[in-house]
Amino acid sequence: MTKDKRKTVVLLSGGLDSTTTLAIAIAEGFDVYALTFKYGQRHEAELHAAQRVAVALGATQHVVTQIDLRQFGGSAITSDDVAIPKDRPIEQISQGIPVTYVPARNTIFLSFGLAWAEVLGAEDLFIGVNALDYSGYPDCRPEFIEAYERMANLATKAGVEGKQRLKIHTPLINLTKAQIVAKGLALGVDYSITVTCYDPGIDGEACGHCDACLLRLKGFRENGLADPAPYKESAGARP
Amino acid sequence: MTKDKRKTVVLLSGGLDSTTTLAIAIAEGFDVYALTFKYGQRHEAELHAAQRVAVALGATQHVVTQIDLRQFGGSAITSDDVAIPKDRPIEQISQGIPVTYVPARNTIFLSFGLAWAEVLGAEDLFIGVNALDYSGYPDCRPEFIEAYERMANLATKAGVEGKQRLKIHTPLINLTKAQIVAKGLALGVDYSITVTCYDPGIDGEACGHCDACLLRLKGFRENGLADPAPYKESAGARP
Repeated sequence: MTKDKRKTVVLLSGGLDSTTTLAIAIAEGFDVYALTFKYGQRHEAELHAAQRVAVALGATQHVVTQIDLRQFGGSAITSDDVAIPKDRPIEQISQGIPVTYVPARNTIFLSFGLAWAEVLGAEDLFIGVNALDYSGYPDCRPEFIEAYERMANLATKAGVEGKQRLKIHTPLINLTKAQIVAKGLALGVDYSITVTCYDPGIDGEACGHCDACLLRLKGFRENGLADPAPYKESAGARP
Repeated sequence: MTKDKRKTVVLLSGGLDSTTTLAIAIAEGFDVYALTFKYGQRHEAELHAAQRVAVALGATQHVVTQIDLRQFGGSAITSDDVAIPKDRPIEQISQGIPVTYVPARNTIFLSFGLAWAEVLGAEDLFIGVNALDYSGYPDCRPEFIEAYERMANLATKAGVEGKQRLKIHTPLINLTKAQIVAKGLALGVDYSITVTCYDPGIDGEACGHCDACLLRLKGFRENGLADPAPYKESAGARP
């Protein structure tokens, strides 16, 4: 919170990727303003996780903003009519776009991040997108992020006046889940307080079977570690 | 609502520009899904206007979605700490970026429009931005819209699969306010039900002195007409 630090907005869901991203922003010396969305997701466990993470990692401010993507639906995450896929083979997870894709979600999240960055006078915005070991979401790809950054620099007052440029940081974009876990552990992240699961229990216990759990578990397994986060009994024996 | 019509999302504030835009989309034969934001603006009069307009012009569906841009502030529209400028000379209105600019507002609005369009399978999105007789907002410029469209086509499932392209329509972008009024009147728009004012009374009576009122009044005056919308008594004699 010193005046020497540059402010940045970090999008924070409370899961493995965004928590690691926040840790990286802190490690790079930024004064972090964390932004979380209550958007109509199936559960609030990840909001509680985001609150724990923001405090534990030392964000200067944490805003949880409410929007309603259930009004539009179109995803297993924002509609109760579509089931969360379970126990898909890892090879299948990265093929095609799954029903957990939420239309325009990252576009919307980045747009609120842009608004806050402009008000704060911040030139930096962090998002934990990941184009390897990911779920095939179009709005996690490098070409999307580049196009977003270009648009954002035409959208704002600073863009017109040419006084500053917004940089979108994607420190995880080319990392595997195993590399993300290793990076976070090296920075001292306590992953036991994070929630990644698409279908957690009321206290955030992970299901162990959805795409997000399978990718996360693979990340820990490849580091020779067990995931420290709580899992439901039905998750079975974890690797 | 016939199956032959193409669906489109139209961003609708209930003011002169977005109402004219909606009328144009209808006249072009689109099946219109109107989207309005309760975003923390100073007054709800424009929401009521949007509801009247959606019904009067025949939108197939009208969604009012709630977001909270007051959490970020940074504008006279979303903060009570900044006064709405009054009685500025018309020449001054288009110079510089005024305090009524809301950071990233159009970026956010378009992003929700993109989400809804993707769920609807719509390839078209209308927004009533206007780069002449406007308030100098960065996110009303053609270069911003072009960059947004390019980004949007990388953001969605359709963008990845190459099955459809999203086109952002800005039918007012090169029109003067006088031309916008003339266009709407030719399409039978009843402007008495619209609210453009930044600082209206409780029933939507316009102040007659803010930038938005001054530009709107100029548009009617140049058509040799009085604005049919209600004004506050303090608006004085109208031209």
